[in-house]
Amino acid sequence: MVPRALVLIADGTEEMEFTITYDTLVRGGVSTVSAFVQDVSSGVLNSEQPPSATCSRGIRILPDVYFDLAQCGPDMYDLLVIPGGAKGAETMSKHPSVQELVRRYIERNKLVAMICAGSLAAKSAKLARQPLTSHPSVKAELEQDFDYSEDAVVVSDNLITSRGPGTAFQFALTLVEMLCGSEIRERVRGPMVFPQNTPF
Amino acid sequence: MVPRALVLIADGTEEMEFTITYDTLVRGGVSTVSAFVQDVSSGVLNSEQPPSATCSRGIRILPDVYFDLAQCGPDMYDLLVIPGGAKGAETMSKHPSVQELVRRYIERNKLVAMICAGSLAAKSAKLARQPLTSHPSVKAELEQDFDYSEDAVVVSDNLITSRGPGTAFQFALTLVEMLCGSEIRERVRGPMVFPQNTPF
Repeated sequence: MVPRALVLIADGTEEMEFTITYDTLVRGGVSTVSAFVQDVSSGVLNSEQPPSATCSRGIRILPDVYFDLAQCGPDMYDLLVIPGGAKGAETMSKHPSVQELVRRYIERNKLVAMICAGSLAAKSAKLARQPLTSHPSVKAELEQDFDYSEDAVVVSDNLITSRGPGTAFQFALTLVEMLCGSEIRERVRGPMVFPQNTPF
Repeated sequence: MVPRALVLIADGTEEMEFTITYDTLVRGGVSTVSAFVQDVSSGVLNSEQPPSATCSRGIRILPDVYFDLAQCGPDMYDLLVIPGGAKGAETMSKHPSVQELVRRYIERNKLVAMICAGSLAAKSAKLARQPLTSHPSVKAELEQDFDYSEDAVVVSDNLITSRGPGTAFQFALTLVEMLCGSEIRERVRGPMVFPQNTPF
């Protein structure tokens, strides 16, 4: 069975975190789908086909599908990814269906991965206290409710968290290893040509 | 004056290399435009508005404009970037107007930056022998005509080359430093949260 991953995206998503994770999963042979989460707080819903996301530094990406709780559950995918970017992460973490999705993946023992401000979804979904990291800019919002770490990638059972664009490769390679094994991780890592002495 | 950068994109461009470079330049305050290069060898030209590029691992990106030699010259921009991805780099390096553009930027002493298979454009544009690097997969096509290096980033006057997705952050930060100075480079680098002991 080919592992399957769902990567959320919204207006304001950090495009490097989204792209590094999605691309690295595809390199690992993971069947990967991006789903566009609408900002429900605006009251104005988009119905463009395909949807388009304007990311945090202006790159516009066409997601594969619209996010829909019924189509995105843990029966469909092995991994749920929530990238950062302040505005995109706010849209996702405040979205009631994303909160429900996070809880369902955790309960079904599927992987949930959050990076940068994406870690705010661990709080809004009311996950249990456990080790977690995030972008330093949202540490103050998380350190009361979690065992806050400053490691580049934190694996706490099936919750994987990371810090920012600079840790996104290590985050993505960790996800490939957890889904596909360490041999595939090394096969993916080599052709990416990291500088000598890269610490992962 | 705000520095200006033009980043080329085509079907098959490596989306991490494109996105890391574009996003990092924007973080540095560089006015950055992406231009879609059509595969002229196919004989079928696209005229979608906006154009869309299907990148090497399936991420679809909406470029800002179509590439047009008259609108993309060294009077308009301070930096030209040619990302990798085998198919995208082939489209760019074989495109006569891209070859002409590379020569014009070099002659006008503007910056030209190539990463991964994008370095093939240095050969197709017939640049002078000088230090250069590329993805290892295209080393054999370049080592006769250039002083081939395996450094992560090679700066040879105004030609900057690099190796792959794993060296893209170091490449992009080098471009920010050359356009905006070392203080801005450090201001951009900090919030990206690289792992401890990252070698750049």
